[in-house]
Amino acid sequence: MEKVYSYETLEAFTLGIFGKIGCPEDQAALATKVLLEADLRGIDSHGIARLSGYVRLWEADRINANPSIKIVHESPSTGVIDGDKGLGLVVAPQAMELAMKKASEVGTGWVAVKNSNHFGIAGFHAMMALKHDMIGMAMTNASPLVAPTFSVERLLGTNPIAVAIPADQQPPFVADFATTTAANGKLEILQRKNLEAPVGWIQKKNGSPSTNPHELKEGGALIPLGSDREHGSHKGFCLGAWVDIFSAVLSGANYGPWVPPFVSFLSPPANPVGQGIGHFFGAMRIDAFRPASEFKMHMDSWITRFRSAKTVDGEDRIIIPGDPERETSEQRLLAGIPLNRKVVEDLEELGARFEIKF
Amino acid sequence: MEKVYSYETLEAFTLGIFGKIGCPEDQAALATKVLLEADLRGIDSHGIARLSGYVRLWEADRINANPSIKIVHESPSTGVIDGDKGLGLVVAPQAMELAMKKASEVGTGWVAVKNSNHFGIAGFHAMMALKHDMIGMAMTNASPLVAPTFSVERLLGTNPIAVAIPADQQPPFVADFATTTAANGKLEILQRKNLEAPVGWIQKKNGSPSTNPHELKEGGALIPLGSDREHGSHKGFCLGAWVDIFSAVLSGANYGPWVPPFVSFLSPPANPVGQGIGHFFGAMRIDAFRPASEFKMHMDSWITRFRSAKTVDGEDRIIIPGDPERETSEQRLLAGIPLNRKVVEDLEELGARFEIKF
Repeated sequence: MEKVYSYETLEAFTLGIFGKIGCPEDQAALATKVLLEADLRGIDSHGIARLSGYVRLWEADRINANPSIKIVHESPSTGVIDGDKGLGLVVAPQAMELAMKKASEVGTGWVAVKNSNHFGIAGFHAMMALKHDMIGMAMTNASPLVAPTFSVERLLGTNPIAVAIPADQQPPFVADFATTTAANGKLEILQRKNLEAPVGWIQKKNGSPSTNPHELKEGGALIPLGSDREHGSHKGFCLGAWVDIFSAVLSGANYGPWVPPFVSFLSPPANPVGQGIGHFFGAMRIDAFRPASEFKMHMDSWITRFRSAKTVDGEDRIIIPGDPERETSEQRLLAGIPLNRKVVEDLEELGARFEIKF
Repeated sequence: MEKVYSYETLEAFTLGIFGKIGCPEDQAALATKVLLEADLRGIDSHGIARLSGYVRLWEADRINANPSIKIVHESPSTGVIDGDKGLGLVVAPQAMELAMKKASEVGTGWVAVKNSNHFGIAGFHAMMALKHDMIGMAMTNASPLVAPTFSVERLLGTNPIAVAIPADQQPPFVADFATTTAANGKLEILQRKNLEAPVGWIQKKNGSPSTNPHELKEGGALIPLGSDREHGSHKGFCLGAWVDIFSAVLSGANYGPWVPPFVSFLSPPANPVGQGIGHFFGAMRIDAFRPASEFKMHMDSWITRFRSAKTVDGEDRIIIPGDPERETSEQRLLAGIPLNRKVVEDLEELGARFEIKF
């Protein structure tokens, strides 16, 4: 039950909606580009499916459509940005630009952001560095849905990390992953298909294992990468915690259980420890370490060697980080982007409300 | 079957051995301090148990006991160091010092190292930053024992990451973990106790699951954090790959399957793609982002909130990264360090060879 839309159709609609809520033209265009990159790359949970969610947060006065984004602290290689409650889709690329500017000046740049909102896919921002022969990094904290090892409380978001590394003839290495066993979007797919989740993705309210993809609504939690203590879930907890601290404690955003929820029907915690949600970005100029041509030649060698490794029976290749998303993107640019029926209905309703036909 | 030794006893012996192989006095002292920090913190696989391994590499002319460690490239926030085949135990702290010097000058410092050897525990180097109100990071590649998702070939090391973050009244946050489901040291413990490994730690030569802790000797492999594709092993592969690329492709060291083995009876690959093994270090001055006192107050709040979270039945607390190692260290400084019988025999033999009584 899917309908397929061209990129241009979704682009025109999204641009229209961001315009209607008051985004300046250039910011609406940027937000659209970032949001739809998720749909192109096949990370459907983070794309246009979230558009009405952003709008509802704007209606609840939790997103500022015309923010005054400011650098509030800096050093030659660092900066802190106050996103003024703007769309993370707009704040994040500006922060990444600052990180790259610092990198061009002193070799690397590192920017922490507070007072922001969800920023789409982390990979977009990290990949901005590639064309400048830089390594890009992006991470963000998010609404608390994840229980640390041995906890029954949800204290962390799915806190993704993205690392983008340029190569020469080979496509770039682009890792972009939630620091949980499975991202929330994977549960949504199971919910739609009425399927059970594998053991190790979710726990019940009391901490015992669950296979119910609706468990989060019953007070359950997602589990850090590793699934259980014996298989290293404490390492997944380390990763999620690291992202939370870099994104929010360094910047002055809310951290841990204080991160405001993405959904407008849940209020932010009454006693915030900071402002909005937080992100963290990094850019490293390759030639601050060694000549870029030399590095990229070795990246080709790295990628080629790993891609050609002998596989287990039944699998035909080793997947290099970024391969599946790049292939999906190339395919969807040509063949269009499939949208689930529920998402289509939601967008039709959104369009009706703002008098833009979907 | 353990014997307990005081820190001072092990220190005097280790110092003596490093002196005998020709380390200058200050370097012998530094190497001893780094090596024994592993024993203090309970990471027994990386401590004095490896001393005879380092010596055998020196005998095979693969470790230079008196290296001329040089900065071969730098920018205001970065550096690349050639370790001149030195002990990683000596090269790594010097690289971390350079990262901290850069951070004191321009906010952050990032140093890649080539032509080095095993550097002990990553946590030691990351923790050097704490007393300067900096965040410290350390990572290293290592001998290939890990098969990427869907691969039957061993292409990555256990490639650990350490992140050390200072707090105020609370002890620091110190994450230090292999990017595999289980570190090799965990297998050694099972081998000694004649126990099976949990499914998800190891695979057989053909890629199928194994519970045999001796499987690596049969051509099997360790598995990236996540255990299998369904539980996110591709994310563990991303992490290990990231460490490999930052440590070795940025610096000019060997990467992937070309990383030379730690054991002297296996020769390094005949067609190296770089020099020695690689490390990567980072230091970020807290006050390049916000006042250190403010940050550390919020770290206390973060740690306190997570530590006091409600636990699952049967567990009495949430473990904050660094807690177990710090507690073990405090206890072992007072009560001494237990060594396994096999390690004691190995050290007695080493001592006899160099005429230093163990």
